[in-house]
Amino acid sequence: MRESVMRPPRDDPQRALIAVDAMGGDHAPAEIVAGAVSAARDGISVLLTGRPGVLRPLLTKHGALADIQIVPAEDSIAMDEGALASWRRPRSSIAVACQLVRRGQADAVVSAGSTGGVVSTARLRLRPLAGTLRPALAVALPTRPLPTLLLDAGAIADPKPEMLVQFAQLGVAYAQTAYGIAEPRVGLLTIGAEPGKGNKLARRAHELLETDFPHGGLPISFIGNVEGCDLLAGKADVIVTDGFTGNVALKALEGAASYATGQLRQALAQSPAARMGALLQRRGLRELAEHMDAETYGGAALLGLEGTVVIAHGAAKARGAAAACALAASLARGQITEKIRERLGPPRSGLFLRRT
Amino acid sequence: MRESVMRPPRDDPQRALIAVDAMGGDHAPAEIVAGAVSAARDGISVLLTGRPGVLRPLLTKHGALADIQIVPAEDSIAMDEGALASWRRPRSSIAVACQLVRRGQADAVVSAGSTGGVVSTARLRLRPLAGTLRPALAVALPTRPLPTLLLDAGAIADPKPEMLVQFAQLGVAYAQTAYGIAEPRVGLLTIGAEPGKGNKLARRAHELLETDFPHGGLPISFIGNVEGCDLLAGKADVIVTDGFTGNVALKALEGAASYATGQLRQALAQSPAARMGALLQRRGLRELAEHMDAETYGGAALLGLEGTVVIAHGAAKARGAAAACALAASLARGQITEKIRERLGPPRSGLFLRRT
Repeated sequence: MRESVMRPPRDDPQRALIAVDAMGGDHAPAEIVAGAVSAARDGISVLLTGRPGVLRPLLTKHGALADIQIVPAEDSIAMDEGALASWRRPRSSIAVACQLVRRGQADAVVSAGSTGGVVSTARLRLRPLAGTLRPALAVALPTRPLPTLLLDAGAIADPKPEMLVQFAQLGVAYAQTAYGIAEPRVGLLTIGAEPGKGNKLARRAHELLETDFPHGGLPISFIGNVEGCDLLAGKADVIVTDGFTGNVALKALEGAASYATGQLRQALAQSPAARMGALLQRRGLRELAEHMDAETYGGAALLGLEGTVVIAHGAAKARGAAAACALAASLARGQITEKIRERLGPPRSGLFLRRT
Repeated sequence: MRESVMRPPRDDPQRALIAVDAMGGDHAPAEIVAGAVSAARDGISVLLTGRPGVLRPLLTKHGALADIQIVPAEDSIAMDEGALASWRRPRSSIAVACQLVRRGQADAVVSAGSTGGVVSTARLRLRPLAGTLRPALAVALPTRPLPTLLLDAGAIADPKPEMLVQFAQLGVAYAQTAYGIAEPRVGLLTIGAEPGKGNKLARRAHELLETDFPHGGLPISFIGNVEGCDLLAGKADVIVTDGFTGNVALKALEGAASYATGQLRQALAQSPAARMGALLQRRGLRELAEHMDAETYGGAALLGLEGTVVIAHGAAKARGAAAACALAASLARGQITEKIRERLGPPRSGLFLRRT
């Protein structure tokens, strides 16, 4: 069954159509639909994939039934289902969203479904970009003035060192597209500042990143090793690591943020004077919470496929879903896929040969 | 040259003599000596290794020259020297401290020297405990009500899965000795709750930890996989991982703490009302800072050798050095080395055979 999708006119590069998996996420579909509606009102073209019977009343509630198309997908992948579900469910809302991108009927996908399910569905339904070894998950960390991109944040647990070089290229393309950084600084996450520090993977990746045009791709501005304490220090624009370490580090940061919030709440509530103090700080504390909040950042981008997939936090509400749509639109409008293709260079041009 | 050391009487198990490397650390020797003096005044027996010409005036200043013995070591390892220095410097202050333990003239070592230098010197100068594959660094994370131990925090970057089982035994012995937890809960740090999640190392370690008496040692209360966000959640008493991931995660937590402090300071200072509020919260915020402060926790313990080495933070001041002495004394008094030996079981009793 092929859906007819009303695309925005192709000749307007500022328009990009985002296929939103309306059924994925802890708060799907209500919050996801609300987020998509809010993104649409901010000028982003979106469509929804999912059960029309469920989605239509939600759109009606927002008065957006006429503005946002629904592409039917009767099936969906539950949050607790593993990667296997992507094989078993060719008509799931996330699979249908990916197929729309594959057929050129949409430009990017947004889903708040389980990371495992979304990554494996996307790898199955979207073509890999020619020359990429494996796609990677890029997450924006809340550094200032601009975010630092961490990748891979969990797409592949045991990568080869060559893949880390590609992750660097993916991250550079992202930083250029989303933040307009001309020459993003790339750091390698490891456990000491000197080149010889780290595990085998990191040591070999360091050697590869140091070569002038790593693996036939465009040059990378490699600043060397960075450590766990540098993740939020704004030292690098792109930090590469394997998906195991990246995922543990990312979740450690999330855990630390919620720990600090809890401790702070306790500290601020322990005396009447302190509670009064907290009242006086309402605005500052609210802004801080907002800045630390993952919902503001739109989620993780799966890069290295023919089409970008933005994975919002599983617990995303309307604001998180809307931010994910905005990120997907920004990456699609900036033609990140083209940029990555260019950065990686012609496929197989000595991908494994140009070791110095 | 053999130093004669005045040991406290052997028949008092509450006495343990701590050899403090007075020359290691960013603020050595002044702050380290001040910390050792403070520990001695709290009833801990300490001696100092280092340059007598430098240390004597410092002890005199504290009025402690008569109470604390100096064991001369004319050499020392600089903070920026790598592991090789431990071979080249048999008379460094850290090497001499380790030799005192090896000869039974002291019970544990404290150093704020560079982790790499201290670990490699200790591995070189102290015997491995029979049956241990590799020593591991254990760090106490500030969970409540009791700390969670993370190991390995960086002693070995590419361990075998069997080593992670031993790290669990080391951590259990530590939690029993230092915190009196009868059956510490052990978690494996990985990137998903299900047993199949993680990289190859974590998946194999999971299988090994699930066996009833892992590798012929005493039974472990294994609670399964934990994730980065669980490090500060108090879900487990001991969390095991490889030294690469452990070090990155630990430093990510440290980085997050200093990031949160900076953001908070900014938020609290942005308006007169907020500044007034912060004034009202002085006590709560001070207590919070203290609780988050690494100096309170004494540092990392290198376990699995014949004698415990506590590595204080490189930037440790007097309070950090004193806390490290207290931790070393607590582990030595609790006879942690004996406990580990017992937990690991008779050496080679099927160390690599009891796979189920």
